[in-house]
Amino acid sequence: MMDEVKIIEIKKSVFAENEKDADSLRKELKNKGVYLLNLMSAPGSGKTTTLIQTINRIKDKVRVAVMEADIDGAVDAVRINVVTGVPAIQLHTGGMCHLDAEMTRQGLDHLDLDNLDLVILENVGNLVCPAEFDTGAVRNTMILSVPEGDDKPLKYPLMFTVCDLVIVNKIDVMPYFDFDLERCKEYIHQRNPKAQVIPISAKTGEGIDAFAEWLVNEITLWKNSKF
Amino acid sequence: MMDEVKIIEIKKSVFAENEKDADSLRKELKNKGVYLLNLMSAPGSGKTTTLIQTINRIKDKVRVAVMEADIDGAVDAVRINVVTGVPAIQLHTGGMCHLDAEMTRQGLDHLDLDNLDLVILENVGNLVCPAEFDTGAVRNTMILSVPEGDDKPLKYPLMFTVCDLVIVNKIDVMPYFDFDLERCKEYIHQRNPKAQVIPISAKTGEGIDAFAEWLVNEITLWKNSKF
Repeated sequence: MMDEVKIIEIKKSVFAENEKDADSLRKELKNKGVYLLNLMSAPGSGKTTTLIQTINRIKDKVRVAVMEADIDGAVDAVRINVVTGVPAIQLHTGGMCHLDAEMTRQGLDHLDLDNLDLVILENVGNLVCPAEFDTGAVRNTMILSVPEGDDKPLKYPLMFTVCDLVIVNKIDVMPYFDFDLERCKEYIHQRNPKAQVIPISAKTGEGIDAFAEWLVNEITLWKNSKF
Repeated sequence: MMDEVKIIEIKKSVFAENEKDADSLRKELKNKGVYLLNLMSAPGSGKTTTLIQTINRIKDKVRVAVMEADIDGAVDAVRINVVTGVPAIQLHTGGMCHLDAEMTRQGLDHLDLDNLDLVILENVGNLVCPAEFDTGAVRNTMILSVPEGDDKPLKYPLMFTVCDLVIVNKIDVMPYFDFDLERCKEYIHQRNPKAQVIPISAKTGEGIDAFAEWLVNEITLWKNSKF
């Protein structure tokens, strides 16, 4: 465990062609055998708690590190590192609302990629901008939390379109909110018919096994794929 | 009440100097006697429900209209119009994550400003980008909801710095979340020592009177001010 978490000040990207750059990064990471997962959400959806629960279930099978992107602060990276023991670094975006591939690369440069199977990028808490930029990840995933409401796919269409997996978090408080999981799934599938939906409660642990299984299975399939 | 809500497709702003433009808009609105309130928050914080509750309390005293900014959809504007009877228009930002003064003006052009005292701009659900752009509003306000966590001022410093009022919503579910109101106030005041904090539950109605009173008082003071 680290005494202090590493904080990296990310510089604005100089590459105009982000999509090309993201494809290059994906290839480099494939060659190194490092699976990059992009995890997005609104602020306060429970990304960090979900990651802690998930990492504790997979860290004996998969060598994992976390990159926490935030405007400011380092609380999340410290918490992940202290609780799970896996390497966690904090990326400061300097006020920027998203990460692109080059900015993601700046973070990856600070990790020991030769000894990792999985890097999870916890993107800036924002349902708009991060959806527009390919980070070079193998998969885009997001967390939607119950208190946010089941209508979010109607309001943030691109985010739900680009995500392969939607984790619905905080299902333990469903009785206190007007949230219909089936209606939410319908809205999600209007945006992306292939999106998978996994309901969880990072607080009680419900559903975390399903996400952990999805993730380990994903990495295995990807490691065995040509690209 | 309108049968169908007006949807305005906002075009990207051509003004480079947003701050100057915002000041001009503020002056124009002052001359017309229309108070513009900018209301920001993360997705799913309960902006629309809060507005409905508040408008129902003030609409006999104050002639109010609402502009709902969203990437897509028109559910919020329709709901506000149907439930409160006040004019509500929907601004589509075409994927943009914020509104600046010129974009706000495009919305205002569709309202009958001669017969209004207050226009509430429900900004795009996002704690990053909207904080960076002056819309021309008299006041910036935001809603932070309990499920998002009390640490949000640490992660989204600019948003909490630019807001004169932070409404803490969903206090009815406080027992189910690890949210310390006093700690949250401390974090808010680290960012902006002058920020007011009003705890509410848009669901139960608790605290809405305090916000309605703040708003009516604000408008009165502003109408009597030189500028």
